[in-house]
Amino acid sequence: MIWPNTLIEKLGVKYPIIQAPMFGVSTPQMVAASAKAGCLGTLALADLSAAQSAQLIQETKRLTDQAFAVNIFAHHIPEITDDLRQKFVKTKRFIEELAKENHLEINLPDLEHIKVNSYHEQVDVIIEHGCKIVSFTFGNLDAESIRKLKEHNITLIGSCTSVEEALMLEESGIDIICVQGIEAGGHRGTFDPENIPEIGGFSLLSQVFDSVKVPLLYAGGIYNARTLWASKELGAQGFQVGSILLASQESALQPFEKERLQRVTENEVVLTRSFSGRFARGIRNQFTKALDETDYILPYPYQNKLTGELRKVAKAMNNADFVNIWVGQSIHTYSESSATDILKELILEVEKIF
Amino acid sequence: MIWPNTLIEKLGVKYPIIQAPMFGVSTPQMVAASAKAGCLGTLALADLSAAQSAQLIQETKRLTDQAFAVNIFAHHIPEITDDLRQKFVKTKRFIEELAKENHLEINLPDLEHIKVNSYHEQVDVIIEHGCKIVSFTFGNLDAESIRKLKEHNITLIGSCTSVEEALMLEESGIDIICVQGIEAGGHRGTFDPENIPEIGGFSLLSQVFDSVKVPLLYAGGIYNARTLWASKELGAQGFQVGSILLASQESALQPFEKERLQRVTENEVVLTRSFSGRFARGIRNQFTKALDETDYILPYPYQNKLTGELRKVAKAMNNADFVNIWVGQSIHTYSESSATDILKELILEVEKIF
Repeated sequence: MIWPNTLIEKLGVKYPIIQAPMFGVSTPQMVAASAKAGCLGTLALADLSAAQSAQLIQETKRLTDQAFAVNIFAHHIPEITDDLRQKFVKTKRFIEELAKENHLEINLPDLEHIKVNSYHEQVDVIIEHGCKIVSFTFGNLDAESIRKLKEHNITLIGSCTSVEEALMLEESGIDIICVQGIEAGGHRGTFDPENIPEIGGFSLLSQVFDSVKVPLLYAGGIYNARTLWASKELGAQGFQVGSILLASQESALQPFEKERLQRVTENEVVLTRSFSGRFARGIRNQFTKALDETDYILPYPYQNKLTGELRKVAKAMNNADFVNIWVGQSIHTYSESSATDILKELILEVEKIF
Repeated sequence: MIWPNTLIEKLGVKYPIIQAPMFGVSTPQMVAASAKAGCLGTLALADLSAAQSAQLIQETKRLTDQAFAVNIFAHHIPEITDDLRQKFVKTKRFIEELAKENHLEINLPDLEHIKVNSYHEQVDVIIEHGCKIVSFTFGNLDAESIRKLKEHNITLIGSCTSVEEALMLEESGIDIICVQGIEAGGHRGTFDPENIPEIGGFSLLSQVFDSVKVPLLYAGGIYNARTLWASKELGAQGFQVGSILLASQESALQPFEKERLQRVTENEVVLTRSFSGRFARGIRNQFTKALDETDYILPYPYQNKLTGELRKVAKAMNNADFVNIWVGQSIHTYSESSATDILKELILEVEKIF
């Protein structure tokens, strides 16, 4: 048995490999397919409502009787100030004009019609449905939520992008920390969205390992046996993979998005705030170029809600220039097999080499 | 013997560990001290004149009879246009005002008095003095220089920060490629200074390993046995370390700079173009904050020459707010022992654990 065993029992898996939560990409089917490979699937609940969260949990439970994690956003919701109202109007107008120029017919919401969810109701739903593992990102859970979840013997996995964040998570009793190297695709898990550390996996994972006692997952750049094993050498006891599943059978990406992904080059993979207001790593396109470095970026979740309609319309038109395609820095051929087969192949490769 | 052996004979060393060129920090003494530990020292010649380069090579040769590498800058020298002339005047004025506000008496050069060296004369000096290993950064050497150096059986080490750059180096017959992860301290080795890829070591090293056949060094974040060994798992056959030697006995840093270094926190380590016009990783201070995100940044080497005088004056006044203190993302306690002892300790740690 070559696999680090600290997390195998705790997570109820055969292999300490975690399918990353990828809201908009991962599906209940992907969670079940990952579990079938002996890995931990993660259901991405993001900042969905309690009702939507409950529905997805139920759907996943119908597909698998294995353990899976649910992932929620522990973000702070910014206050609606006059300043935000004005900025919202300007940003909305800018995006509407951009859409018009590009023949995308959209109908963007007004600020007062945007419904923003906090994670507190999700916490109740998660407990109610007997989930056993909760991972979260964009910050730390409040003490009361941590207490409630722990009272129900739920294992908590927090995400960090700096040593400072790791220390805060450990201090508040989080069981496992997922260390997110700068290589990772999708959103940076950073607590403070305005000021993101951009620390490479080598330095970050090793320093977090030197600084905390809780077991660590590593996320960011793992796409083959060598990258997985290197993170083990740096101190990871579990391995989170996302990008290798982007084009899988169970991915919610559309064929045109998978096709775009297969053509991506290293200089197109950038950090952008344009889609959600928080930094995320994905493919640079007309939309990111039009918005990044401008003032038309609202704090999360408002930017996310505002651009959501545009992305929906672009997606329906197979327009890769106005959708977010997140991807990490390890560019490779993205397998279109099932998540089960992709993960099994990774496991076999690791067992063969190490 | 646990060490990868591909480069041991080629570099004439006992251990495939390379002391990074750190212009302004590394010294002939550091090169000799590194050689004494069985590692490859690197003499940083940057863009010094032929005469200065010759002097440093001679000095190093007096201190050691071991192999060492010399490192030069293979940068493109920008043409002096009217645009550059105007920008120079404005930048000079800005820096002069900043210096005055901060009680630093400086006398900055005019553009026409700045002497810019190209590496071609250095190449002749290197051959003349019988150097056997040349590493370079900021681009690729021209075909004629490569031919000349190879004719004299000189081993060439190029630096890459992307897969694309690695392919270019391999294509032109460079013997060894040093892969620089985003974690690295000091200057990014990127060919095009305007557009730097910011790829973490995990993704970059593994992808370069998948893409080229020449042996690889890894630079960026190595500060202990674990980080060194992780880069081996990712495909490195040699290991370049810089930051662990910053506070060593043989470092040219002043006591106040070493003291500042020992207090550095993770959110202070940034990429900045403010000092040289090229992106480099180091400690954020009053100077970087005043210049980054402004237009007062000239292309390398002009920014470097312009700020040189300011840095010299600040250094003499022990003013850490106006000097460049480069450092990588792996923050640790910087040993003040000799480079020999620091490297020996790293070697022992690796041999003990792996």
